[in-house]
Amino acid sequence: METGNPGLKDTRTWGVIATWQMALSGTAQAGEILNGGGGAGDAVEALIRQVEACPEYTSVGYGGLPNREGVVELDAAYMDGDSLAQGAVAGIRQVRHPVSVARSLSARHANSFLVGDGAGRYARDGGFEMADMLTDRARNTWQDRLKGTEGGAAAPYDGHDTVGALALDGAGSMAAATSTSGLFMKDPGRVGDSPLPGSGFYADSQAGAAAATGLGEDIMKGCLSYEIVRRMREGADPQEACDRAVYPFVETLRRRYGKVGEISLIAIDPVGRFGVATNVDFTFCLAEPDRPASVFSAAPDGQGGTRFQTVRSDSDE
Amino acid sequence: METGNPGLKDTRTWGVIATWQMALSGTAQAGEILNGGGGAGDAVEALIRQVEACPEYTSVGYGGLPNREGVVELDAAYMDGDSLAQGAVAGIRQVRHPVSVARSLSARHANSFLVGDGAGRYARDGGFEMADMLTDRARNTWQDRLKGTEGGAAAPYDGHDTVGALALDGAGSMAAATSTSGLFMKDPGRVGDSPLPGSGFYADSQAGAAAATGLGEDIMKGCLSYEIVRRMREGADPQEACDRAVYPFVETLRRRYGKVGEISLIAIDPVGRFGVATNVDFTFCLAEPDRPASVFSAAPDGQGGTRFQTVRSDSDE
Repeated sequence: METGNPGLKDTRTWGVIATWQMALSGTAQAGEILNGGGGAGDAVEALIRQVEACPEYTSVGYGGLPNREGVVELDAAYMDGDSLAQGAVAGIRQVRHPVSVARSLSARHANSFLVGDGAGRYARDGGFEMADMLTDRARNTWQDRLKGTEGGAAAPYDGHDTVGALALDGAGSMAAATSTSGLFMKDPGRVGDSPLPGSGFYADSQAGAAAATGLGEDIMKGCLSYEIVRRMREGADPQEACDRAVYPFVETLRRRYGKVGEISLIAIDPVGRFGVATNVDFTFCLAEPDRPASVFSAAPDGQGGTRFQTVRSDSDE
Repeated sequence: METGNPGLKDTRTWGVIATWQMALSGTAQAGEILNGGGGAGDAVEALIRQVEACPEYTSVGYGGLPNREGVVELDAAYMDGDSLAQGAVAGIRQVRHPVSVARSLSARHANSFLVGDGAGRYARDGGFEMADMLTDRARNTWQDRLKGTEGGAAAPYDGHDTVGALALDGAGSMAAATSTSGLFMKDPGRVGDSPLPGSGFYADSQAGAAAATGLGEDIMKGCLSYEIVRRMREGADPQEACDRAVYPFVETLRRRYGKVGEISLIAIDPVGRFGVATNVDFTFCLAEPDRPASVFSAAPDGQGGTRFQTVRSDSDE
């Protein structure tokens, strides 16, 4: 079996990119791992675990907002860009680090995507840390929302800030991972794009990697992570791949489906170049050898491209 | 919102293709629907319901083989090729027709993919027929398998015969649907490719439709249904799209992942041409205006293409 990308063994570059400002300290940690010669898989897992652990972030892991019944149900995935191995969980409960469960599942040939109680039992039996994932703050937010919708159906809140992380390591290997608590007030058992290969994430060390955040149900309609990686495989640079995959698809959905939710994608290629496309105001983090972990904002430029702004870097702190 | 494919409104062709010989009578019924001017969505749903209802078929619906704990857990999906709307369920229990639940979910913008207990509750609350899906025969097969593996872990049996159906109707609209009980002896909560957009199915009335059967965990690694539709969008005919998407990917997996499971794909394009690629001996059914529902067999030709043989037609009966 091949590992890494033989064509890139001599490069000394590495890079990591992740969705949303909340990934800044995780991105810094992933950058340290990569800078020290660590692997892409370890980098994305560490990044996402840091976001999952933080109770302040209401859309991922501990502190994530619950479904309409007040239960936190989590989705996560992991993909190894060398072997194309994937692992995923959806609707998993009471697991501290869903991304680590997903990574563990990626070592299996069959039964690598588990949902619901079956996923939870795999985690418990495998010795993964179990925890009550509903914080008091998240419970209060849920109760306030319930009161606000008394007498009517509770519409799912369309905040849906998945953390997605992509890394290229010094050996030319790539990995992708995602983690989310999904739509606030979602129906029990609802699955978004985050654990779905090709929709929420995709990684191929010989082509590139991509990950998504936004309204999963619309991202899935276009298999956008796969489509971006595919365009990089055919020679597009990551920014071009993102722009050309995302903006025409947003128009297609508007025309054919009649509406379109929030959609943001990030990408990295095998030489460490980055790309982003989004139909909203979006923040993301990245780190590379000559740049400490930094936050950028992105927005559509209205002409089929994306405009960027530096928000802050880790060295500002 | 556009519906159908405006460029094809004047054609009077229709077509339906489905995986495995078990789809023959469903394909005949779908052909009657399409021939009578019915819609692609109604055709694929009727086809799949017929396979789901039959207790003889041990890989789909009623009579489907259970997971390693003796519980039948079902996956299904539906996609409308006009709007790109999708609905899916995974790990659903005690529902007579998972494909109809999936189709119902495709009418929602959010919460259109439900798993586990949440999916079952949606079906029950929505008035879908509930049923004990474990037949005596399936229970006996499971018990025999358990005895056969006493003292060792029960390995998942790699029979995994998803019914996938694709239709083009006389108005130029396309639809795709899938249904399966998944791997026999699977882990509780295991999800294969069948309910995953782009992996198990994809439909775009302006490009084509594709569906998969085989080891879901490997099909997912290549987003093969989406990749085939994408190639048709770029001008490939369905057979060319299938051959070029599937055979090189099988080699890629063998090289990079070290092994590859069974993979079979079917496709149809907006003018009613068909395509198939497979790395095993595979059967499929199709019907079109000048051909009654017929069974074909397909196998790889060893040179990057697929060879076919007629097995029987509905008029043989």
